[in-house]
Amino acid sequence: MIVIMEREATAAQIEKVAERLQAFGFQVHLSRGVERTVIGAIGDKTPEKIEQIEAMPGVERIVPILQPYKLAAKEFRPERTQVRVGNAVFGGDEVPVIAGPCAVESPEQILETARAVKAAGATVLRGGAFKPRTSPYSFQGLAEEGLKLLKEAGRATGLPVVTEVMNPRDIELVHEYADMFQIGARNMQNFSLLKEVGRARKPVLLKRGLSATVQEWLMAAEYILSAGNSQVVLCERGIRTFETETRNTLDLSAVAAVREHSHLPVIVDPSHGTGKWKYVLPMARAAVAAGADGLIVEVHPRPEQALSDGPQSLTPENFARMMEEVRAVATAVGRRV
Amino acid sequence: MIVIMEREATAAQIEKVAERLQAFGFQVHLSRGVERTVIGAIGDKTPEKIEQIEAMPGVERIVPILQPYKLAAKEFRPERTQVRVGNAVFGGDEVPVIAGPCAVESPEQILETARAVKAAGATVLRGGAFKPRTSPYSFQGLAEEGLKLLKEAGRATGLPVVTEVMNPRDIELVHEYADMFQIGARNMQNFSLLKEVGRARKPVLLKRGLSATVQEWLMAAEYILSAGNSQVVLCERGIRTFETETRNTLDLSAVAAVREHSHLPVIVDPSHGTGKWKYVLPMARAAVAAGADGLIVEVHPRPEQALSDGPQSLTPENFARMMEEVRAVATAVGRRV
Amino acid sequence: MIVIMEREATAAQIEKVAERLQAFGFQVHLSRGVERTVIGAIGDKTPEKIEQIEAMPGVERIVPILQPYKLAAKEFRPERTQVRVGNAVFGGDEVPVIAGPCAVESPEQILETARAVKAAGATVLRGGAFKPRTSPYSFQGLAEEGLKLLKEAGRATGLPVVTEVMNPRDIELVHEYADMFQIGARNMQNFSLLKEVGRARKPVLLKRGLSATVQEWLMAAEYILSAGNSQVVLCERGIRTFETETRNTLDLSAVAAVREHSHLPVIVDPSHGTGKWKYVLPMARAAVAAGADGLIVEVHPRPEQALSDGPQSLTPENFARMMEEVRAVATAVGRRV
Amino acid sequence: MIVIMEREATAAQIEKVAERLQAFGFQVHLSRGVERTVIGAIGDKTPEKIEQIEAMPGVERIVPILQPYKLAAKEFRPERTQVRVGNAVFGGDEVPVIAGPCAVESPEQILETARAVKAAGATVLRGGAFKPRTSPYSFQGLAEEGLKLLKEAGRATGLPVVTEVMNPRDIELVHEYADMFQIGARNMQNFSLLKEVGRARKPVLLKRGLSATVQEWLMAAEYILSAGNSQVVLCERGIRTFETETRNTLDLSAVAAVREHSHLPVIVDPSHGTGKWKYVLPMARAAVAAGADGLIVEVHPRPEQALSDGPQSLTPENFARMMEEVRAVATAVGRRV
Repeated sequence: MIVIMEREATAAQIEKVAERLQAFGFQVHLSRGVERTVIGAIGDKTPEKIEQIEAMPGVERIVPILQPYKLAAKEFRPERTQVRVGNAVFGGDEVPVIAGPCAVESPEQILETARAVKAAGATVLRGGAFKPRTSPYSFQGLAEEGLKLLKEAGRATGLPVVTEVMNPRDIELVHEYADMFQIGARNMQNFSLLKEVGRARKPVLLKRGLSATVQEWLMAAEYILSAGNSQVVLCERGIRTFETETRNTLDLSAVAAVREHSHLPVIVDPSHGTGKWKYVLPMARAAVAAGADGLIVEVHPRPEQALSDGPQSLTPENFARMMEEVRAVATAVGRRV
Repeated sequence: MIVIMEREATAAQIEKVAERLQAFGFQVHLSRGVERTVIGAIGDKTPEKIEQIEAMPGVERIVPILQPYKLAAKEFRPERTQVRVGNAVFGGDEVPVIAGPCAVESPEQILETARAVKAAGATVLRGGAFKPRTSPYSFQGLAEEGLKLLKEAGRATGLPVVTEVMNPRDIELVHEYADMFQIGARNMQNFSLLKEVGRARKPVLLKRGLSATVQEWLMAAEYILSAGNSQVVLCERGIRTFETETRNTLDLSAVAAVREHSHLPVIVDPSHGTGKWKYVLPMARAAVAAGADGLIVEVHPRPEQALSDGPQSLTPENFARMMEEVRAVATAVGRRV
Repeated sequence: MIVIMEREATAAQIEKVAERLQAFGFQVHLSRGVERTVIGAIGDKTPEKIEQIEAMPGVERIVPILQPYKLAAKEFRPERTQVRVGNAVFGGDEVPVIAGPCAVESPEQILETARAVKAAGATVLRGGAFKPRTSPYSFQGLAEEGLKLLKEAGRATGLPVVTEVMNPRDIELVHEYADMFQIGARNMQNFSLLKEVGRARKPVLLKRGLSATVQEWLMAAEYILSAGNSQVVLCERGIRTFETETRNTLDLSAVAAVREHSHLPVIVDPSHGTGKWKYVLPMARAAVAAGADGLIVEVHPRPEQALSDGPQSLTPENFARMMEEVRAVATAVGRRV
Repeated sequence: MIVIMEREATAAQIEKVAERLQAFGFQVHLSRGVERTVIGAIGDKTPEKIEQIEAMPGVERIVPILQPYKLAAKEFRPERTQVRVGNAVFGGDEVPVIAGPCAVESPEQILETARAVKAAGATVLRGGAFKPRTSPYSFQGLAEEGLKLLKEAGRATGLPVVTEVMNPRDIELVHEYADMFQIGARNMQNFSLLKEVGRARKPVLLKRGLSATVQEWLMAAEYILSAGNSQVVLCERGIRTFETETRNTLDLSAVAAVREHSHLPVIVDPSHGTGKWKYVLPMARAAVAAGADGLIVEVHPRPEQALSDGPQSLTPENFARMMEEVRAVATAVGRRV
């Protein structure tokens, strides 16, 4: 790391910082410019040490040289990680599509949806049983009953299933029914939850937080990886900005950034990313063109009767159309859906 | 609510929306403009119904008339709520100050800090035992040992204590030691946690999420209130914006907004709000001038040895100076610290 | 528009608002709910009248029904506008690519670049002569000399040229040399400039402001259209968010949004949108997949000697590769480059 | 500056970067860590050189050590700059208040307002003659007629006047009538305009752009200072964030930041910062408590008839109340209004 001293830093302050760095085991290089002294510190230390140096008198700021994630970094693992969920493989040439309703509502609804998305080419079924709703008065999901229905619909159609887990207390239960855990955007920095799914032996779909930088997102993945679970798939689902035309701002550059910095597969959720079903089609195409390793899309047989997220849900017909368009784009970029 | 139809909406689509609204129990008023038909729907229904209408063909958008929170609204309770923690009362004329280190590190550190902040006029002691850290390699807190030390320091100085709870599994444990639960910014929409502290009989300090609107924040409070716990104190601690000069952007207008819309007390955290101890003093003064019902400030006897947040921690000397300045401003606005 | 009255609004206040609306020529409908009175006002009035009503005692807020732009709206002109610049047509099946250096630096540099981009398939040449630089100490462009060199390079290669105009005083001068005006992101709400290019008879490339909503961007276009110039091409170039991995956050959903609301062509600038040449390729592909009507890309023969924006400039080789990839995606979505 | 090389950077690439830095006149220090080579470069060079190095193969990123502004920096001028406008002095112990309507509308309106704000203690009169309006159909201001009326009202009450200039072509005209130029938020990076007011010999009020960092704002001031005009007063007026409760998010920490980095006075505009007159009072108090060197506030005798910004305008009565409250806070922080 590099320690930039204040202009007014005294010789004694500079000395003290250098000494402390050495005591921490860093190799130290001083560089005195006309206006500032800069101290280079070689070594790889814990975040605490960095903050402690930053809080010393005379220090203006610290510039870290190395990224803070290790296991999630390309440098740790140059080849791309592949995560298998049923027959779907994330991180290879294939671009698997996860589809299903926002929430599991009834046996008929989830089965009908499962059949429709399977027919159109989806290879993983999604559906929420525990729903993180902004309002306590909104439908909160069917809980275990929803998990059962989801699993049955998956079994009936031969599709593996992914569903959100919100509470560490529910991990065991969800583990029984799901083929893949989903960590929602609002829980991306729920570190207790991350550690616990990190101890499970099951793939994890880690959505990006609404206001998380790419680096913080990779740090959240690092929590799971460092707990022993290497099967992490990242999911860009839009960030919060000033723009109100869309529910969130889908940041497709994040796909390129993740592929630049990490070996983990990254998929895109154009449903939450836009909040409007009309925009899901173009953004699904764009995601695949940008290099996404998969898609996750909300589909409901009757969006106007959905208990959540109807406005952004595709009908089965629109989903089938989306799959066709996405297939053409995948081919154009040398991949297949 | 108001339903704005698309320009191209057909008579049949308009009819269908009106019928469905009536079936849901709304009183319906149609208003046909030259370019748009607008349907007024009187009644107070669940969020699901709103989304279902929004997903109907021909509907452009929905404009809700009423705010989505009920128990948190001023309309529900016109007089301001007062929350008592030890001798501190939040929501009255007094402006209590909560102070202490980011994390409890050792018996000496927490006790020394407790004595210093008490001497300067703080009336509640803070200190983290479970720390939500961006990196899994950072100090994660002393857990139960930390809770014990915090409680002992509180007892030794006569200060009640507040500490963060991150995992629903830890609520019982934290309940034993703390006088007030803290829900951190990253958990503001951890709805499982909100529901569970809502069932506890202890005050809750609810920090605003990094990317939460004031309305979403009040909805998070609503989760706690609707679970039966009415002792909620809100805490503005900065939101995430493009500005990098400060760690977050402290949104003091949110204090005015909360006081306009809700009866709940609202305090300010200038330490996380700015991330730089030098800016804590002016922003603490500004918070009180804006009408904050309290402050929460990080203090460490030796910031350059803190295991977290050293750069934004005040020394006891600077904290004492802050208290003096804040006292003068409180008097100027008709309150007292 | 719809006027939502405060809960505490008195009968007299409601009456007064209704009267004033009628005096302004609105048709008025009152709807009294249990908690709020809502006044529907049919008619299309100036923005002043809306603000005046909003400022009346007892009014909580105003909800406009109609979008504020007229000439830029799809409703005004259902077929898509086509803007021709030389042989390039924006808004049709074709996806023209504008390419060239950030700044015109020398006769050799601009000519070499022009030849390279032309060879790879670009149909418009870009190059800055007046540069909006954050620092007064940065290279500010060659001014008229730059315009001359740009035009000569265009003539030598048969490419029309586009260049930025920053100062109303320079419009005449730029008019002489350029085939298309560019309004930069920082000037998107420079209304004096917009009005003056609106009076010119030449196509305008209107970049989106760093913090402009799609609606404000269309309002900026409205300034040009309402001054009599209908040849406007919009350009998404990234918005400012909290993410620092990229220079800006390229908002490709805005392409879908513009196509939903307006008849104007919309292109994408992946160079400024990402700030890193490595990310330009994937985002150029994504832009075309999302439905962009064109691209504008920075190309420099030797980025490491560029006087501005080197880090985000493609070499001619990378540009040629981009063109190939983009062509494949364009074909996949039924268009051609 | 510091050059951080990519992990995969070759010895030849490192060599080349070092050579080029030396050729540019930097003193160079190499520091080889286990994972990265870092090159320290001492010297103070133009921004172009920095970008050119950043674009070289093998370079990961550049970390500048020195801030990019010179004349605006505290290091250039340790004592605070005082800017005098009539009897008001910005940057001293006094906290002058600028007040008046958003737009000059009529002789009666501006004179009535001038008298009221003068009576309550304002020392500068504001009023717009050229208005930057989002919509081309909104009232655009009275132009020269407005300038005349403003000046007359100022003369009648003995108040100096400040008004916005939007177009370089209007500088001479505005110069005739105004005692201080205002550069609006939307023009903060209108560099042509900045350069031209920099050549004028009159104080400039420079509003912060909606999405400008503090550093970019100081760079905009640098444009004016480097053109020879040292009488710059900065004005924080809210930045654009995701929050919709307020029109903008007033960033009061920016006051502390400006005072930390620069010698220029900085004032606050709580009217645009919040967009709601009810929030103007608490935020005006907070601004002064935070250390603002002045306030600028919108006042209109009849907000519900204002041709712009009625909802955020104070009545003369509310303004008088604000002045009283602000006076008490100023005294508490050792200043006077």
